[in-house]
Amino acid sequence: MAQVAVLGYGTVGSGVVEVIEKNSDVISKRVGEDITVKYVLDLRDFPGDPIQDRVVHDYDTIVNDKDISIICETMGGINPAYEFTKKALMAGKSVCTSNKELVAAHGPELISIAKANKCNYFFEASVGGGIPIIRPFNEALTAEKIDCIMGILNGTTNYILSKMENEGAAFDTVLKEAQEKGYAERNPEADVEGYDAGRKIAILASLVYGETVKFEDVFTEGITKIAPVDFEYAKKLGLTIKLIGLEKETSEGRFAVVTPRLIGSESPLAGVKDVFNGILVHSNMLDYSMYYGRGAGKLPTASAVVGDVIAAAKNPGNHLTCVWEEKACSLADYKKLAQKYFVRVAGNMAELKADIEKVFAGASFVQLDNVTDEFAFVTEEMTELEYDKKAASINNIKSMIRM
Amino acid sequence: MAQVAVLGYGTVGSGVVEVIEKNSDVISKRVGEDITVKYVLDLRDFPGDPIQDRVVHDYDTIVNDKDISIICETMGGINPAYEFTKKALMAGKSVCTSNKELVAAHGPELISIAKANKCNYFFEASVGGGIPIIRPFNEALTAEKIDCIMGILNGTTNYILSKMENEGAAFDTVLKEAQEKGYAERNPEADVEGYDAGRKIAILASLVYGETVKFEDVFTEGITKIAPVDFEYAKKLGLTIKLIGLEKETSEGRFAVVTPRLIGSESPLAGVKDVFNGILVHSNMLDYSMYYGRGAGKLPTASAVVGDVIAAAKNPGNHLTCVWEEKACSLADYKKLAQKYFVRVAGNMAELKADIEKVFAGASFVQLDNVTDEFAFVTEEMTELEYDKKAASINNIKSMIRM
Repeated sequence: MAQVAVLGYGTVGSGVVEVIEKNSDVISKRVGEDITVKYVLDLRDFPGDPIQDRVVHDYDTIVNDKDISIICETMGGINPAYEFTKKALMAGKSVCTSNKELVAAHGPELISIAKANKCNYFFEASVGGGIPIIRPFNEALTAEKIDCIMGILNGTTNYILSKMENEGAAFDTVLKEAQEKGYAERNPEADVEGYDAGRKIAILASLVYGETVKFEDVFTEGITKIAPVDFEYAKKLGLTIKLIGLEKETSEGRFAVVTPRLIGSESPLAGVKDVFNGILVHSNMLDYSMYYGRGAGKLPTASAVVGDVIAAAKNPGNHLTCVWEEKACSLADYKKLAQKYFVRVAGNMAELKADIEKVFAGASFVQLDNVTDEFAFVTEEMTELEYDKKAASINNIKSMIRM
Repeated sequence: MAQVAVLGYGTVGSGVVEVIEKNSDVISKRVGEDITVKYVLDLRDFPGDPIQDRVVHDYDTIVNDKDISIICETMGGINPAYEFTKKALMAGKSVCTSNKELVAAHGPELISIAKANKCNYFFEASVGGGIPIIRPFNEALTAEKIDCIMGILNGTTNYILSKMENEGAAFDTVLKEAQEKGYAERNPEADVEGYDAGRKIAILASLVYGETVKFEDVFTEGITKIAPVDFEYAKKLGLTIKLIGLEKETSEGRFAVVTPRLIGSESPLAGVKDVFNGILVHSNMLDYSMYYGRGAGKLPTASAVVGDVIAAAKNPGNHLTCVWEEKACSLADYKKLAQKYFVRVAGNMAELKADIEKVFAGASFVQLDNVTDEFAFVTEEMTELEYDKKAASINNIKSMIRM
């Protein structure tokens, strides 16, 4: 029997207990032994809850108990999760986490401590919620050189953008509704400004490069400036707008950025709607592959944590390789990334088109029906440095979205 | 250094050599040692080919060489692949295969021989080509009870259906074109009659149930009867037509069937076009997840084989659990599966509608513009036994497609 402790009895932690108990039959079959939750660490008590007798308030009870071989860290935040995780790994106990903040900040250090102590630090749930993505990277796409990832990595913003597209509603209106439904947090900054997606693309890019991509180095632009009219243009162009975490290696270097992007309706990412996540990977032998599912939520996220628990239980004393070194990965300036740009301009298209074409050669223009006081154009592919230079000479630019 | 032998230097086998050599840097990093191809077994010689000096014609050279720890079986067919695989596993050499026919026919036996000899029989490439699906099932979705799989598992038929949809072309025309392009074989039966997809859903269903679903027990209906007009109705209904390998567990029992199906444009499977494959999985904690990519082709398939080689090289002497027993899985009669039906009828809708509604209560009717001599209706959900009984009393049914 493998005995587990759960740190933090919040949404994901209580989900972990639920998954382990509800699916105990299939889990036992796959592991070859039972998995049971011996402790739940929380500051609170939970009188009346089936786990009430297993709640402890002192972490030492867990870390000093030799029966505990696996710990689920579902507390979130850096402290005290970081200290707790280190202590556990140094005691040879595997840690399975959903804490993307901690993984993005200290992943490689914790992996190397796990390696030194013949146990594992697993973090499948830190990216894409319940979607298997870390394990495919580490254990299935191992014969591949990945050169590009485009991920819809945040369910809240994807829900908001899907609603804006379908209902023509404004960002603020949809955000408020999402908050009322519990799809967005009261302080939505981490989601809508792209920070959550930024941490996730930092983790994925680190796994691709084998070196540490720091979240702080990832350029992020959120969705707060996306307007309903942008979707009208997008529709006319056969495109849609998604918040994309992009990792790309080109001759200019390595890029990791989060921005809204216009993507074609033929892309499999275009079909990733509402709270779903989708991660499109391009690699040199396989070409495109995509991983799709629920990127958040109690049970999907908990399921990924428990999948890690099962992997840990099947590999006692055996550290599974994960190539991710502490060495900082040097990213290229995001302004050097080449792409197309969708640009909205105030004014009359007939009057301004010729001037714009002088600056943006090969641009294609688009105007909405019955709108005469603004129009838009799509540029050829160029770096953002080039774009900025050209755009500085155009008056009345209202907004720009990368493609 | 791990030394590998490749059995069969055809499309996939030569791809395996190419992937191992082209991506040797990343592969060595992930395994922690180099992987090299020592032998290629083929009846032919390949003068001028870089592997010409490594070609052997006698399998015993390979199986008796203690330096060979891993064998890639990319021959296809049951014999002699079955004997060769058994011999290798009994000698403690792991076998990685793309041979779905052999896996579907003898998978559990070969897995148990591997287990007894502390090596592995891996078959990621047997389903979905380069898409990671077997490994996610065995190593990531382990905390889940999977209750339904809907898979677009055959690239040839998906290409044909996509072409028919986009161009309004007839099945025979598109098949001929696909054959000329090399997307379809000269004898296309295994693809267009659904046998290839049938073997793949048999493998996936076996992994879900942990018991052997025999290909012979999988009801298969191919795409040869799908007509361009079916796509016209589908478009009007906001649907598309795909060849779906379905695994489903209901209160009536366990089902595994391959048939064309009308699916909604909001399904992520609707976006799986051309030669791509997509496998949509429903499980009790995660809800829906999907795995998308190239389901065939030299390098994608070879990449999956090499991913298995890497897993084998990282686990010498360690059999990784795969719950798939030889015991036959008892499938329910496919006629007991409940679903809706799209039915085309010859004749005048105004004259026939009332009679049909008497039999198929709640049916919804649809007619194409400018067509008066036929129409269609969509039934409520019912078993195929019920449908057959009701349909027997309707004259002039031209065709039926399940939904």
